[in-house]
Amino acid sequence: MNFRHFSLSIAAALLCATSALAQNPPANPPAAPPSMMDRLNAFLGLGGKSAWTPEQLAAMNKLRDAAMKDPYAYNELHHLTDNIGPRLSGSPQAQAAVDWVAGEMRALGAEVTLEKAMVPHWVRGEEKAELVSWPGQATGTKQKIVLTALGGSVATPPEGITAEVVVVKNFAELHALPAGAVKGKILVFDHPFDKELAGNGDGLNAYGNGVVYRAAGPAVAASAGAVAVLVRSVGGAEFRIPHTGMTDYAPGIEKIPAGAVTAEDAELLANLANQGPVKLHLTLTPQTFPDAQSYNVIADWKGSEHPEQVVIVSGHLDSWDLGTGAIDDGAGIAVSMQAIHLLKELGIRPKRTVRFVAWMSEEEGSQGAAAYMAEHKAEFANHIGAIESDLGADHPTGIYYAGKPALGAYLRPLSAVLEPIGAEVLSDSTETGEDIAGLTEGGVPSFAPIQDSRFYFNYHHTPADTFDKIDFKHLNENAAVMTVLAYALADSAEPAPR
Amino acid sequence: MNFRHFSLSIAAALLCATSALAQNPPANPPAAPPSMMDRLNAFLGLGGKSAWTPEQLAAMNKLRDAAMKDPYAYNELHHLTDNIGPRLSGSPQAQAAVDWVAGEMRALGAEVTLEKAMVPHWVRGEEKAELVSWPGQATGTKQKIVLTALGGSVATPPEGITAEVVVVKNFAELHALPAGAVKGKILVFDHPFDKELAGNGDGLNAYGNGVVYRAAGPAVAASAGAVAVLVRSVGGAEFRIPHTGMTDYAPGIEKIPAGAVTAEDAELLANLANQGPVKLHLTLTPQTFPDAQSYNVIADWKGSEHPEQVVIVSGHLDSWDLGTGAIDDGAGIAVSMQAIHLLKELGIRPKRTVRFVAWMSEEEGSQGAAAYMAEHKAEFANHIGAIESDLGADHPTGIYYAGKPALGAYLRPLSAVLEPIGAEVLSDSTETGEDIAGLTEGGVPSFAPIQDSRFYFNYHHTPADTFDKIDFKHLNENAAVMTVLAYALADSAEPAPR
Repeated sequence: MNFRHFSLSIAAALLCATSALAQNPPANPPAAPPSMMDRLNAFLGLGGKSAWTPEQLAAMNKLRDAAMKDPYAYNELHHLTDNIGPRLSGSPQAQAAVDWVAGEMRALGAEVTLEKAMVPHWVRGEEKAELVSWPGQATGTKQKIVLTALGGSVATPPEGITAEVVVVKNFAELHALPAGAVKGKILVFDHPFDKELAGNGDGLNAYGNGVVYRAAGPAVAASAGAVAVLVRSVGGAEFRIPHTGMTDYAPGIEKIPAGAVTAEDAELLANLANQGPVKLHLTLTPQTFPDAQSYNVIADWKGSEHPEQVVIVSGHLDSWDLGTGAIDDGAGIAVSMQAIHLLKELGIRPKRTVRFVAWMSEEEGSQGAAAYMAEHKAEFANHIGAIESDLGADHPTGIYYAGKPALGAYLRPLSAVLEPIGAEVLSDSTETGEDIAGLTEGGVPSFAPIQDSRFYFNYHHTPADTFDKIDFKHLNENAAVMTVLAYALADSAEPAPR
Repeated sequence: MNFRHFSLSIAAALLCATSALAQNPPANPPAAPPSMMDRLNAFLGLGGKSAWTPEQLAAMNKLRDAAMKDPYAYNELHHLTDNIGPRLSGSPQAQAAVDWVAGEMRALGAEVTLEKAMVPHWVRGEEKAELVSWPGQATGTKQKIVLTALGGSVATPPEGITAEVVVVKNFAELHALPAGAVKGKILVFDHPFDKELAGNGDGLNAYGNGVVYRAAGPAVAASAGAVAVLVRSVGGAEFRIPHTGMTDYAPGIEKIPAGAVTAEDAELLANLANQGPVKLHLTLTPQTFPDAQSYNVIADWKGSEHPEQVVIVSGHLDSWDLGTGAIDDGAGIAVSMQAIHLLKELGIRPKRTVRFVAWMSEEEGSQGAAAYMAEHKAEFANHIGAIESDLGADHPTGIYYAGKPALGAYLRPLSAVLEPIGAEVLSDSTETGEDIAGLTEGGVPSFAPIQDSRFYFNYHHTPADTFDKIDFKHLNENAAVMTVLAYALADSAEPAPR
């Protein structure tokens, strides 16, 4: 998940940089929990006529139970992360993942299409930094600074640059500095991640509050004359690991090298710079190549009555390159694959087509999704629903839905199906998934598992996003939500309200 | 803390490698908690005649309260970690730390001596590894393996080595392999850290169970014909950070390059090697220079009646080089400095000398401590007590003591003094500190704060051992234990039982 929808546009950030808005960017408030009565009604299956027959509800129960036992999702994810590895857009690993997923889907009997998309092709290079002078420095010593390049960053010269460091907490502090204070310097945005907010379950807003510095920081810093920019990693972990992620440059503003330092290194820089001049030697040598040909993998489990009507189950196949993309978003791919696998295993052929989509390049601009939207715009009326899982693989408490309020009543019988795995909540949301946002905007009802995000931002975009972070039971709960919901949307007598 | 006392000798490890002992090395059982009655008596100050007058106990209360408020320890630790940085034995930073601590102690009016010790001078070099072939590998891809060299490791050739990987869980699995199975290979010990044991408060034994592989692994692997050895990091964190630490080579056995991979990378290697041949390219280029001249810093706060009698307050000044040595063991240094600082601030001159010692090179063999023991052997009778803090800076629950059982009754009045900060437990132990082990063996009563070790091994010896891990209140609680105990030992009418 890249959360570009959280990033203010560069222009807005430049405009707002001195306002309170920049410190508290607009972000979605957490969805209100359903009332006790709603929960009770949902649990009892009350609140209106069900869109599903008792036989269909029995099939959902079977799919749920199968999802909780079947190791397919877990094993596929293990292969994707360990055997294929990191899947940066445009990389050989991303292509290998496309080929492998397509093969797996064909093996299940799905109808597979590779849909072309041109994607960014950015390759991480050397990345290192060290303090070369600071207050109280002992003769002949340096200090290592742990950092990583932000996605899309331009490079320093191969031998690096050496410049004084200026540390600010936020845009407002930057703009309070005297004119020229940042000229020729390396600007550091030391904006701490709100761990309490994340720990209270609102990781998305904690992330949103910090990620504006990652997205807009380079352009804002360059406007102020900085020669490079470092942002404090946007994440909750305290283990000196950097969090990468896409940055944005602005037209007409110089592109300067951009990296993320760890929380620890941001605090070290802030402490030392507060005592006197601090000089940093910084080397980042990523390369940006011409856009590369890549693909969304589309695999249709054809509907028995309305094959032209589709319900999408999806995740994104690309990942950042520091880890192996287990929680972001191998898990979304694996639980979507599981939906097709279980329909096959249980011999279920819903009325409508269940379409698996492995989106490409979500992390670097959602070019795969854009290609799909352009290609299928005319078929949106036949898109009955779209689901994406892209917030990890921790325990899901239910389903987010975006679209008509009537979707809530429509989904109520599913709440009872998912209650035994603790996923009975139904929650209205304006956001379901980055890749399906175009469908949502086009009037297609869209959905996502409501995932526990308390720990997600400790690992997301870091070297520690690896397979061992996956819990078998939690992953299967997500697979159950995905599979039950996909079947329900694809087999209901009437399509979901829109 | 290096916990060399946990490491079996190489010879023993080689002998025991096939026995159950190797999987469950002997380690100290956790100290039994005091009975409810003991606690009550301690709290009430009952259980025998107090060695301290009401006036002395009042002074202890004052020292405790001052320790809880005074920011000296916290600020000194901040300078040591951020401004001086990592302090590897023989490094310019270690020398800078010696000079700075000596200066700070002179500024307090203590009598400072720099006591020579020859210490190892090992310097970390380049360290990187990548998988070059594995089952399911996509054409043209490699995978990064995160690791660090173990302290004292020899180097690979500058261009690295490439070899197949063999993964075992423990010595028994290694010895169950066919003869020659490891010859020419890189041997990986994938022995998981027992996080449950650590989480339950017994971090020391969790560490002890794993650290034998770090200590003896290289010699055992070389004996089996391996060309290099990698051990799974001995620590509880799941953030893909490696834990360094000293390794041992054995006389007459080839020295092979030795590193620690992260828990995540150990699991990746184990999973892939379980599927088929895995080849790794490994580059480690540390250098071992001739032993360097270094120093223990000794600073005496001279006693008013028996200046020749000394009570030691101490920590070790050297650290590993990945982090900045905040919890291991900058904290021990800072709380020991605080003891001298508070005696000065409160104008207290105990009967006996309170001797601050900043030990050098604990991490690489305790050469500083060995030099002290050799130099002061004849004065052990005048060493009334020795305290070391070397298990971090989390909440202390009381005092470990090593020596005569009568020490328990002797210390009881202190339990009441320390109860308001939750540090009232008195616990017999055979271990108090690595650096003061020679004094303990020489019959000197020795002591340590009982520190909460549940989180210590998540950070210890990693890049994440940095100042932000220090909690002001917890650090001050440790300073209070150190200061109250030092004063008590130095001012009691009768010396502590021995």
